[in-house]
Amino acid sequence: MNDARQYFSLPSPFAMRRGDALIGAQVAYETWGTLSAARDNAILILTGLSPGAHAAANAGDPSPGWWEDMVGPGKHIDTKRWFVICVNSLGSCKGSTGAASINPQTGKVYKLDFPDLTLEDVANAGYELVRGLGIDHLGCLIGNSMGGMSALGYLLQHPRSVRAHISISTALQAQPFAIAIRSLQREAIRLDPHWNHGNYDEENYPEAGMSIARKLGVITYRSAMEWVGRFARIRLDHDARADGDPFGAEFAVESYLVGHARKFVRSFDPNCYLYLSRASDWFDVAEHAPKNPAPPIRGEQSGSKVAAALARIDVERALVIGVSTDILFPLSQQEEIAGGLRSAGAQVEFVALDSPQGHDAFLVDIARFGAAIAGFLATL
Amino acid sequence: MNDARQYFSLPSPFAMRRGDALIGAQVAYETWGTLSAARDNAILILTGLSPGAHAAANAGDPSPGWWEDMVGPGKHIDTKRWFVICVNSLGSCKGSTGAASINPQTGKVYKLDFPDLTLEDVANAGYELVRGLGIDHLGCLIGNSMGGMSALGYLLQHPRSVRAHISISTALQAQPFAIAIRSLQREAIRLDPHWNHGNYDEENYPEAGMSIARKLGVITYRSAMEWVGRFARIRLDHDARADGDPFGAEFAVESYLVGHARKFVRSFDPNCYLYLSRASDWFDVAEHAPKNPAPPIRGEQSGSKVAAALARIDVERALVIGVSTDILFPLSQQEEIAGGLRSAGAQVEFVALDSPQGHDAFLVDIARFGAAIAGFLATL
Repeated sequence: MNDARQYFSLPSPFAMRRGDALIGAQVAYETWGTLSAARDNAILILTGLSPGAHAAANAGDPSPGWWEDMVGPGKHIDTKRWFVICVNSLGSCKGSTGAASINPQTGKVYKLDFPDLTLEDVANAGYELVRGLGIDHLGCLIGNSMGGMSALGYLLQHPRSVRAHISISTALQAQPFAIAIRSLQREAIRLDPHWNHGNYDEENYPEAGMSIARKLGVITYRSAMEWVGRFARIRLDHDARADGDPFGAEFAVESYLVGHARKFVRSFDPNCYLYLSRASDWFDVAEHAPKNPAPPIRGEQSGSKVAAALARIDVERALVIGVSTDILFPLSQQEEIAGGLRSAGAQVEFVALDSPQGHDAFLVDIARFGAAIAGFLATL
Repeated sequence: MNDARQYFSLPSPFAMRRGDALIGAQVAYETWGTLSAARDNAILILTGLSPGAHAAANAGDPSPGWWEDMVGPGKHIDTKRWFVICVNSLGSCKGSTGAASINPQTGKVYKLDFPDLTLEDVANAGYELVRGLGIDHLGCLIGNSMGGMSALGYLLQHPRSVRAHISISTALQAQPFAIAIRSLQREAIRLDPHWNHGNYDEENYPEAGMSIARKLGVITYRSAMEWVGRFARIRLDHDARADGDPFGAEFAVESYLVGHARKFVRSFDPNCYLYLSRASDWFDVAEHAPKNPAPPIRGEQSGSKVAAALARIDVERALVIGVSTDILFPLSQQEEIAGGLRSAGAQVEFVALDSPQGHDAFLVDIARFGAAIAGFLATL
C-alpha cells in the first residue's frame, strides 16, 4: 500500500449534492504506514484548495510532500502507529476527476461542463475511498482550511463513521470577507481574456488572472505581522527590477508574491480552481439542519440551523486549532466550531496558536501544530 | 472664499522630491468658514487616495461631500470657528495637476510622462496653497489614510508651520502587507490590455483592471467583522444574478463590491491611481532622518532613523486616532505614530476606536470620530 499516487474508482454514477452525477470518476490518493488487522488505525487527511495527495515522502515518491515534517515514521502524525491516507479533492487536478479531466461521455475535457461541485461531494469521494480500502471507521479525520470544511461535510453526511476529528483553520460556513476574497480571485481569472470562458490551452492560458488570484491568496494566507519581520521595507537589488517598467516590483514582498505566483500558475488548472473556490463559498453547515435542508433565505438567521446541523455530528473526540493571525479563517470561527462540536456531545480540545504566519501556519509552524496534533493523537 | 472648487497655481517650476519639476501646475481646493483677522483659525485637510476637495457642502456646491457630517457650521469640525481648507492631492484627477492633465510643455496629456510623484510633493503643494492663502501657521493639520502620510510629510518638511495635528488611520512608513495589496491593485490595472501602458481613452478603458483594484481596496478598507453583521450569507435575488454565468455574483457581499467598483472605475483616472498608489508605497519618514537622507538600504534597521526623523517635527499638540479593525493601517502603526510624536516633544492624545468598519471608519463612524476630533479641537 506504500506506493505513491494510487487511484480509486468512485461508484458510477457518483451522485452529487446539487443533482448531477459523475460517470467513471476517480480520486487520487497516497498512503503511509500499515492498516492494522482490526482496521482501526486509519487517518484520512482532507486538504486545502491546492495541495495534492502527496502529503509526505513515501516509498513510491521520495520527494518531500506538502506536510513533510508532520507525517511519517516517528513524526507528529506517526506512521508507525497510524495508517495515513491523503486524498486529492474531487474536482481538483492532481489525479482526481475535475474540470480538467476527460468527460467519458463526450471524450472531451469537461471544462465548464463539469457539474456543480460542493465540498460535500469532495467529502463523499473521500468517504467512498475509505470504504473502498476496507475501513468502516476512521480513527481520525483531519481537515485543513478548505479540507476542514470538507471534513465537516464528511461528519455531517456520515455520522458514526469517525472516532476523532482534527479541525484546522476552517469554517462552519463561508463568511463574507472570505467570499469577497475568493470572488475577486475568480473574477481575476475570468476577466483574463485567455480564460475564454474556460476554453484555454497551454498556448493561450489565463496566466495573468491566475497570477493575481494566487498573489491575493498568498496575501490572505499569511499575516501582516509576519511580513513586517520578514520583509519590512527591503528593496530589490537593481538587477532584480524590470527595466523600463515604472510600476514594476520594487520591494522584496512584491518579488516574494511573484515567486509564489510563478510556482502556482501553471501547476493548477484554472477551471478546477474556479470550481473548488466556489464550493468553498457555498459551504454552510446550516444546510444540514434537519427538516429544512434548503440554503438560508435572505435575511434569515442561520445560527440555530448551524447548531441543529452540528447536533447530527457524532464523534467522540475533537481537536480544534486556530491561529490568532489568520485573517481568512479567523480564530472566532474556530471557537464557533469548538463550541458547536462540544454542544453536539464531543469531548473537544480547543487550541489557539499565536503563530505569526496566519492561515498558512499549519503548513509552516510545524513546531506548534505538531505538538498540538501529536498530543491529541497520543490520547486516542 | 466660500465658492466651491477653486484653483491655486503652484510656483512654477514646482520642484519635486525625486528631482523633476512641474511647469504651470495647480491644485484644486475648497474652503468653509472665514479666516480670522489674526489668520490663526485655519485647518487644512489632506485626503485619502480617492476623495477630491469637496469634503462637505458649501455655497458653491451644495451637494454632500465625502466628510459631510464632520465639516460644517455646528458640526464636529465647526466652520463657525474654523476656516477649513481641503485640497485635492497633487497627482490626483479632481482638479489638481496629475497624469491625466495636459502637459503645458507638449500640449498633450502627461500619462506616464508625469514625473515621479511622492507624498512629500503632495504635502508641499498643500503647503504652497496655505501660504498662498496668506496663512503662515495652520491651527490644525488633519490627515486621513494616505493624507495622514502626506501630513507627516508636511510636518517634516515645514516644521513650526503647524500648531496642532490630527493623524487618522495612517502610517510612518508603508508596511509590506499594505505594499502587497497596493502592488496587486496596480498590477490588475496594468495587466488590463486596455491600460495599454497608460494610453487608454474613453472607448478603450481599463475597466476590468480598475474594477479589481477598487474591489480589493474596498475589501481591505472595511472589516470582516462588519460584514458578518451586514451581509452574513445573504444571497442575491434570482433577478439580480447574471444569467448564464456560472461564476457570477451570488452573494450580497459580491454585489456590494460591484456597486463600489461601478461608482469608482470611471470617476478616477487609472494613471493617477497608479502614481498615488506608488507614492504611498514609497512613503517612509525614515528618509527624513538628518544627515542620511537616502532610502534605507537592504536589510538595514530603520527604527532609529524613524525616531531621528520624527524628532524634526515641531507641533505643540497631536491627536492620533486608530481603529482596532483596520487591517490596512493597523492600530499598532497608530501607536507608533503617537509614541513618535510624543518623543518628538508634542503633547499627544491617542485614541483607539472599536469601530467595526475598519480603515474606512473615519468616513462612516462619525459618532466616534466626531467626538474625538471635536473634543480635541475644543482644547486648542
